[in-house]
Amino acid sequence: MQKVFNFNAGPAMLPEAVLLKAQEDMLNWRHTGMSMMEIGHRTDVFQQLVQQIEQNLRELMGVPTHYHVLFLAGGATLQFSMVPINLFTSQKKADYMETGLWSSKAIKEASKFGNVNIVAQAKKEDDLWTIPAPTEWQLSHDADYFHYTPNETITGLAFNHVPILKNIPLVADMTSMILSEPVNVNDFGLIYASAQKNLGQAGITLVIIREDLVKLPLSITPTLLEYATHVTAQSLYNTPPTYSWYILGLVLDWMKEMGGVTAIHSKNCRNAERLYDALDRSQGFYRSSIHPAYRSKMNVSFDLPNDDLLKLFLHESHASGLCCLKGHRAAGGVRASIYNAMPEEGVEKLVLFMDYFMQRFG
Amino acid sequence: MQKVFNFNAGPAMLPEAVLLKAQEDMLNWRHTGMSMMEIGHRTDVFQQLVQQIEQNLRELMGVPTHYHVLFLAGGATLQFSMVPINLFTSQKKADYMETGLWSSKAIKEASKFGNVNIVAQAKKEDDLWTIPAPTEWQLSHDADYFHYTPNETITGLAFNHVPILKNIPLVADMTSMILSEPVNVNDFGLIYASAQKNLGQAGITLVIIREDLVKLPLSITPTLLEYATHVTAQSLYNTPPTYSWYILGLVLDWMKEMGGVTAIHSKNCRNAERLYDALDRSQGFYRSSIHPAYRSKMNVSFDLPNDDLLKLFLHESHASGLCCLKGHRAAGGVRASIYNAMPEEGVEKLVLFMDYFMQRFG
Repeated sequence: MQKVFNFNAGPAMLPEAVLLKAQEDMLNWRHTGMSMMEIGHRTDVFQQLVQQIEQNLRELMGVPTHYHVLFLAGGATLQFSMVPINLFTSQKKADYMETGLWSSKAIKEASKFGNVNIVAQAKKEDDLWTIPAPTEWQLSHDADYFHYTPNETITGLAFNHVPILKNIPLVADMTSMILSEPVNVNDFGLIYASAQKNLGQAGITLVIIREDLVKLPLSITPTLLEYATHVTAQSLYNTPPTYSWYILGLVLDWMKEMGGVTAIHSKNCRNAERLYDALDRSQGFYRSSIHPAYRSKMNVSFDLPNDDLLKLFLHESHASGLCCLKGHRAAGGVRASIYNAMPEEGVEKLVLFMDYFMQRFG
Repeated sequence: MQKVFNFNAGPAMLPEAVLLKAQEDMLNWRHTGMSMMEIGHRTDVFQQLVQQIEQNLRELMGVPTHYHVLFLAGGATLQFSMVPINLFTSQKKADYMETGLWSSKAIKEASKFGNVNIVAQAKKEDDLWTIPAPTEWQLSHDADYFHYTPNETITGLAFNHVPILKNIPLVADMTSMILSEPVNVNDFGLIYASAQKNLGQAGITLVIIREDLVKLPLSITPTLLEYATHVTAQSLYNTPPTYSWYILGLVLDWMKEMGGVTAIHSKNCRNAERLYDALDRSQGFYRSSIHPAYRSKMNVSFDLPNDDLLKLFLHESHASGLCCLKGHRAAGGVRASIYNAMPEEGVEKLVLFMDYFMQRFG
């Protein structure tokens, strides 16, 4: 069977080394004679695993000691609720940037619990999507927190800088770019990311929260939706998604072997550059709707001259082992998600295919 | 390496056939050239999988068409919140049976959101735990629902009948006995069970809800905590724990091959009988604190004459490939969890070990 490169936006491609290790471990993990799936979450061997995973995560991201690292169920979508429920003070007031579908969903959910001020929205300039410059933002200055989505997965619209705010906790949904580039955790009050793009398989969500932001929520809240619950219980209040946690650990092991975030970021930059080059030199055959200054390095979306060519492109690319290039149902077109696990070989093959396809139909 | 029998209470033993299939599929699931973990949840192949899983579940349990079958994240513990949030009417009044740690946790959580009437509590009679007969229950008669835990995992205290109520929806936390014996779904308003005991690996929770109970919750509720959200989206509102869902599917496939619930129930009865026989004929060397009428077929707990013997028992059983027999930290002693995946060979081996141990120290 030919090697398949999976450009799906999430659940997404995993490093082959991770899958091989999971396969090897399946019936006998760490000489227990049992599968990792069968291991109790209160056992010593599981405790050792999760301690090692937290340590690796802290090391890879440079997480300072005054931040808690949590591994939770429910996906980033549950964080859309947990963030306002836990971070609102009595005034219930937050600033949100709206740059695409995911930040819109976060805004809609937060609006259930308090007042959301939309600081700025993505806008089209000369037919290209941009993010307004900070000088255009309508900040409230006394918000309980400021929320943004550094990378919008669906369109591939990305911030090219971290917002600088004075005394307002910065909250970021890093689901589609976590560990893909160096970040300074100290810039943030809270970071969250579900795992199925850069951290492993679906079913587990990373939350990094500055310790002063862990407090009792305002009103009656389900126990599992309080950050304080999970901080106290070290993410083991109830049975956690153990296997997703283990796969996340294998991904971090692999990242360390690859040289950590800096090395992977370099690879990601080369992949993105190669792909955007292919768009740029296609003279409009492959058309991106994102302004070059806000191009995502994780999700490269583009369109073709017409629907027939789009269908053919998706069909032929799939037949060539370039899988899952169909854009999100809300956006259409083509989307190549090139997360940490995507090797350069995959993008090289895609670019070759794109060039060949354009030669025939351009 | 010797074969290990895993008596852990959950995450628990899985059928070997399930693990072998997962191992085989790891790098190439259903000829996709990808791991199941890498498959998008909006793809046709995933849709086919989840439809097949729902169909198998409905078939195995005999779920009528006016019940929705949901697969959710967050574990049974999240259901402790979701049940009251969604099922309370304006009076916010529910009846709960309190028979052990898990029902107590459910009561504590429901009490955050409304009024809980404790109908009856487990009690000791002649030093043995029993569940009061229905004639002793203090029912409210107008409760929004009645909640109970058919099998308390920690002690192994189990109902020997399904409560019969007039016009009050019956809600059951079946986490530790789902699919282990035939049940009549029509007796229930809502059934929930996290997967890590009888349904697969941790990270996914089954909810079966009668359609008239799906309504808008009373107050502002996180979107993911509304049953209506998941009914409308067919459990795909956000990225679900795809791999846990897949493993659950493999477990259902295995159950069908084993002859379904009736066949597995017979095997479970033989296992439980064999183990309780060993206790009964030990003349108090192995001491159960559960009245014979309320003995669990899933979790068999017992104690030894003293702590030194207990430690030795746990040490030697482990060395003999009988793993994870240590009781819950809240209860101590020995607990043998013998869920669906436990073959008769495992219990036979345990009983042989128990007999041999008693011969030496009894």
